[in-house]
Amino acid sequence: MAAITAANHVKFGRLEKDLFQLSIDSALPITKKYGDAIDLAIFANAYGGQYNGLSGVNNRLSAELFDVPVPSLRIDNTSSGGATAIHAAKSIIQAGDARSILVIGSEKMSSVPTRQSSSIIASLLDPYERCSGLTLPSLAGFLARMYMTKYGSSRESIAQVTVKNHRNAMKNENAHHRKEISIEDVLSSKVIASPLTLYEYCPISDGSVSMLLSGDEFAQSISSKPVRISSSSISSDTAQVSLRDDIMQLGAVRASSSAALKQAGISTEDVDFAELHDMSSILELVEAEAVGFFQRGTAWKEIMEGSMDPDGSIPVNVSGGLLARGHPIAATGLAQAHEAFVQLTSQAGQRQLKDPHFAISVSMAGFGNSATSIVYEAI
Amino acid sequence: MAAITAANHVKFGRLEKDLFQLSIDSALPITKKYGDAIDLAIFANAYGGQYNGLSGVNNRLSAELFDVPVPSLRIDNTSSGGATAIHAAKSIIQAGDARSILVIGSEKMSSVPTRQSSSIIASLLDPYERCSGLTLPSLAGFLARMYMTKYGSSRESIAQVTVKNHRNAMKNENAHHRKEISIEDVLSSKVIASPLTLYEYCPISDGSVSMLLSGDEFAQSISSKPVRISSSSISSDTAQVSLRDDIMQLGAVRASSSAALKQAGISTEDVDFAELHDMSSILELVEAEAVGFFQRGTAWKEIMEGSMDPDGSIPVNVSGGLLARGHPIAATGLAQAHEAFVQLTSQAGQRQLKDPHFAISVSMAGFGNSATSIVYEAI
Repeated sequence: MAAITAANHVKFGRLEKDLFQLSIDSALPITKKYGDAIDLAIFANAYGGQYNGLSGVNNRLSAELFDVPVPSLRIDNTSSGGATAIHAAKSIIQAGDARSILVIGSEKMSSVPTRQSSSIIASLLDPYERCSGLTLPSLAGFLARMYMTKYGSSRESIAQVTVKNHRNAMKNENAHHRKEISIEDVLSSKVIASPLTLYEYCPISDGSVSMLLSGDEFAQSISSKPVRISSSSISSDTAQVSLRDDIMQLGAVRASSSAALKQAGISTEDVDFAELHDMSSILELVEAEAVGFFQRGTAWKEIMEGSMDPDGSIPVNVSGGLLARGHPIAATGLAQAHEAFVQLTSQAGQRQLKDPHFAISVSMAGFGNSATSIVYEAI
Repeated sequence: MAAITAANHVKFGRLEKDLFQLSIDSALPITKKYGDAIDLAIFANAYGGQYNGLSGVNNRLSAELFDVPVPSLRIDNTSSGGATAIHAAKSIIQAGDARSILVIGSEKMSSVPTRQSSSIIASLLDPYERCSGLTLPSLAGFLARMYMTKYGSSRESIAQVTVKNHRNAMKNENAHHRKEISIEDVLSSKVIASPLTLYEYCPISDGSVSMLLSGDEFAQSISSKPVRISSSSISSDTAQVSLRDDIMQLGAVRASSSAALKQAGISTEDVDFAELHDMSSILELVEAEAVGFFQRGTAWKEIMEGSMDPDGSIPVNVSGGLLARGHPIAATGLAQAHEAFVQLTSQAGQRQLKDPHFAISVSMAGFGNSATSIVYEAI
């Protein structure tokens, strides 16, 4: 078993610093204190080549962060790379091949114009579907339309995801966007892929989060308040969205979250809060159903009733989520785990939930092409 | 413990097919036979973004190769990424988190002009040293000059590495270059970084190698002739070459190979053949010394005496090495492991060594920024 023994989150946003320096900023407070206990550094980063023209960054980071450079590697799984890196680190610790592993998740996206950024992200799509003109934002618009048609969801309830997550981010000093907005603001902002508007997509963010994972036998010597990674699971779906039996069913989210809950020996009712992958407003609703918090087709009612608010039955994205905290691709999985860490160790400040014990994070690659779910437990 | 239970090598060269199709070509023969036994696919690839403008390839490969897509991720460690992927796969198997893992190592480099390719590879250098005008080829030239000055090595003995490896590749149907060349050919070819010439650098190659790694308890059900991965070890050095105490000492190669040999419980004398990272001729000599096959400053004499020939005391790069087999960045570590697999299972055809039992491979990232060493054993 592995535990999170330290975590550090650089404020997300459009930042001056480059990929390397952002990564140093998030990791150095950890290596300064615990450098001698660390056997491996995993750099979660998807697009350092395409956004920043860089390679071999993991080795440079290791050389800069440690007195004696530790072995390092890069893990990528596009948007879910940070979570996948935690998943792999857990295995390596379980195998007895490292006492503690530093996982650094970083992305520097603002270095290119928005149009080029969209094109870089679209390079993960199935090429046939890309040739059809599909993009991740357009798939989300398509999904929202299906959801509204099939379940009679109101347009407002989808927009409410953005409203809630922006409100939550007001209490998160690391969030990219910290501005309350109303349903009217969301609905009147520029349409990106009908019916969804600008505010219903995560922004283009730079950021870095670092985390120390330790084997159970080493965790207590590093931290008096570690957080257990009870389980993690990764699942895949077709990359070609049109091949899926049911486009509204995020099969990889469902499979990975149910496997993670099962491995942890708990059910959705035991989960005190969740960090979901709200790349777009609609995705939070569909994912909340795929994980099993709500019946299919009902999340839109639940969010209007406040069920996903910090004081609701299942608080979702208390951190502000991708929509407001921001989504520096590979940093996101670690930002989700960071939220679990600070909440479960009562370090979440203004947004602290009352005595949470279990949390789950779901991180998605592509349009559900893959998902990594992690269950966390306070110990 | 983990074992190699299947391996497949696409011929390296300047190929028509794209990154995705090359990967399918190497992996499909394995997934067709053993797909049901595979729990995870690791895609080793460094530059799919910079060379090919692609991302999320691991998910697309999984969707294409399996009836039900298995979880997948990408691992990168520049030139040593293939070996690092094997290293990580071994941990995941040891942790009990997968029965068998498919590792696909691929790179498609010929898609851009040579000048752009050099610039992409140079993106791994320390930025200060890159600004000084250093490149990996120039560092190799610099090292060759130092080696000749310090040890009185003849120029011919360095060129002999290329001659030997090209001769070896004549018997490897998967090699990029299959043409015997003489010392005179090497010395009279175009100078790239004095004193080294064109033939003393690995070519720009496309290629893919896939491999199945299985836990000991599953290996026998898949293959009657698995090859044990006795140990693997990864080490790092400074990324800034000028910071090293001794530039001629490849510290990461020395540390990772000695750790791997120690973990395997053997010494250099037990090793029957080695695959080293001959990105340039001079590197094979310096690495052979760093691993401990020869005293420092003596490998140049040994190669002239035939010690590294297939019938010598320690055959090195029987496959043709990076110089002649080619070096599709992340595919190389898997090509080295492939050579160990076919030799240790008596499937190496014309280049079969006589009853080898132990082999070692050393794969290097950057200019020794990192190295991954793996020990293989016939079982």
